[in-house]
Amino acid sequence: MDPSAASMSKAVERDGETDEVAVELPLEIRLNGEPVAVTMRTPGHDFELAAGFLFGEGIVDAAPEVTLSEDLAANVVDVRAAGATPPAARRFYTTSSCGICGKGALEEVEAIAPRVEGGPSIERALLAALPDRLRQPAFERTGGLHATGRFDATGKLQLVREDVGRHNAMDKVVGRALLDGSVPLADSVLCVSGRLAFELVQKAVRAGAPLLVGVGAPTSLAVELADDRGLTLAGFAREGRVNVYTHPGRIR
Amino acid sequence: MDPSAASMSKAVERDGETDEVAVELPLEIRLNGEPVAVTMRTPGHDFELAAGFLFGEGIVDAAPEVTLSEDLAANVVDVRAAGATPPAARRFYTTSSCGICGKGALEEVEAIAPRVEGGPSIERALLAALPDRLRQPAFERTGGLHATGRFDATGKLQLVREDVGRHNAMDKVVGRALLDGSVPLADSVLCVSGRLAFELVQKAVRAGAPLLVGVGAPTSLAVELADDRGLTLAGFAREGRVNVYTHPGRIR
Repeated sequence: MDPSAASMSKAVERDGETDEVAVELPLEIRLNGEPVAVTMRTPGHDFELAAGFLFGEGIVDAAPEVTLSEDLAANVVDVRAAGATPPAARRFYTTSSCGICGKGALEEVEAIAPRVEGGPSIERALLAALPDRLRQPAFERTGGLHATGRFDATGKLQLVREDVGRHNAMDKVVGRALLDGSVPLADSVLCVSGRLAFELVQKAVRAGAPLLVGVGAPTSLAVELADDRGLTLAGFAREGRVNVYTHPGRIR
Repeated sequence: MDPSAASMSKAVERDGETDEVAVELPLEIRLNGEPVAVTMRTPGHDFELAAGFLFGEGIVDAAPEVTLSEDLAANVVDVRAAGATPPAARRFYTTSSCGICGKGALEEVEAIAPRVEGGPSIERALLAALPDRLRQPAFERTGGLHATGRFDATGKLQLVREDVGRHNAMDKVVGRALLDGSVPLADSVLCVSGRLAFELVQKAVRAGAPLLVGVGAPTSLAVELADDRGLTLAGFAREGRVNVYTHPGRIR
């Protein structure tokens, strides 16, 4: 049903040679037949992407109400969820300025995601090493894909997904967990191959993950949201080091 | 009117020390009072961002019809453009599957951007070195910002803009040019600090730039669009090397 990893990359000619690049194509996500969003994504695991996206945005609340049909030849996935309706306007699209600030963004996430409490603790050196354990077969060929991994607290990789869009890779991991009935991810550490912006923290908090670590830098609003929602946020995980920005109590 | 570079970063506590992170806040872009989009951006040059975004999407066509008012305290910019109307639905939001594929995406750009003809030629070694010339003062402090630079064919940097969002940095550069009356960018080389996805190529083509180079990898659809629209697309510009994917005739 999902394309194999081989279809995530494609040969192109350049400088008289053949090169592999990451495939990028639009995907339209529908809810009960209504278009909700179009994202530029790398084909593969489109069900997971659609489910994870709708869950992350707070449009659907649970896996059991999500069933999926698709027409992948047309790059469309339709999510059937009884009782769920597309938002009247896209998140943040408002006609007043209310909500269009950092405080409004934090409050919007608060409404769809409870504060993360408890969760595992992890050794600092192990946390710093997680990005090295993100296997990225398609990245090796193309150099053009982001990855998100779900790990347990012993550093064992449970799932990894790749995509040209960093948000999509996260949606695919959360969507898989949602479809498997393993959300909230109360015992998991999420790891991303890039920087840590607001929306990635939002998705992690919404999925109930207690820890999020990235190879890159966090933004101001990412730090504020993680602090507010109880998430342990760590960045610059490379070369055996890692910076911990919020809730360091889960780091040993 | 625009915040100084200093307000692009912000101090946060981490591991008992003080660290600088890139500021990220929502910006609502309005057209003649109607909300069109909200983007997570780094404050600064918000006029340019709004103008560049609306131009890149094909919603406004020229600078002279764009005047701007703002309420930056509320993170809102309102673009006044006589005769322009917000799209009925966001680009790519359709109720059929028509257009939701790579071919549809290419045709959509074709409708708003003429094929790029002519333009300068540039030495290959100079093209490879352009990313090193992207001055990024706020990146130095935070490690968390993307940059887009506009260069002339001798490698002279004419403008650089930074943002947490790679698309925003490009919109700011194009928006500045639009407000200055220097679009199309027929003599310019655009350079980005990251990867080369479809939307960045779309923005470069729409701005009439003949060359686009990036530090990272291109996607499949980025290569296809550049090929179709006459843009010279180059990637992996680092350590004195660069890969040229399309229209190498402009490389000496």
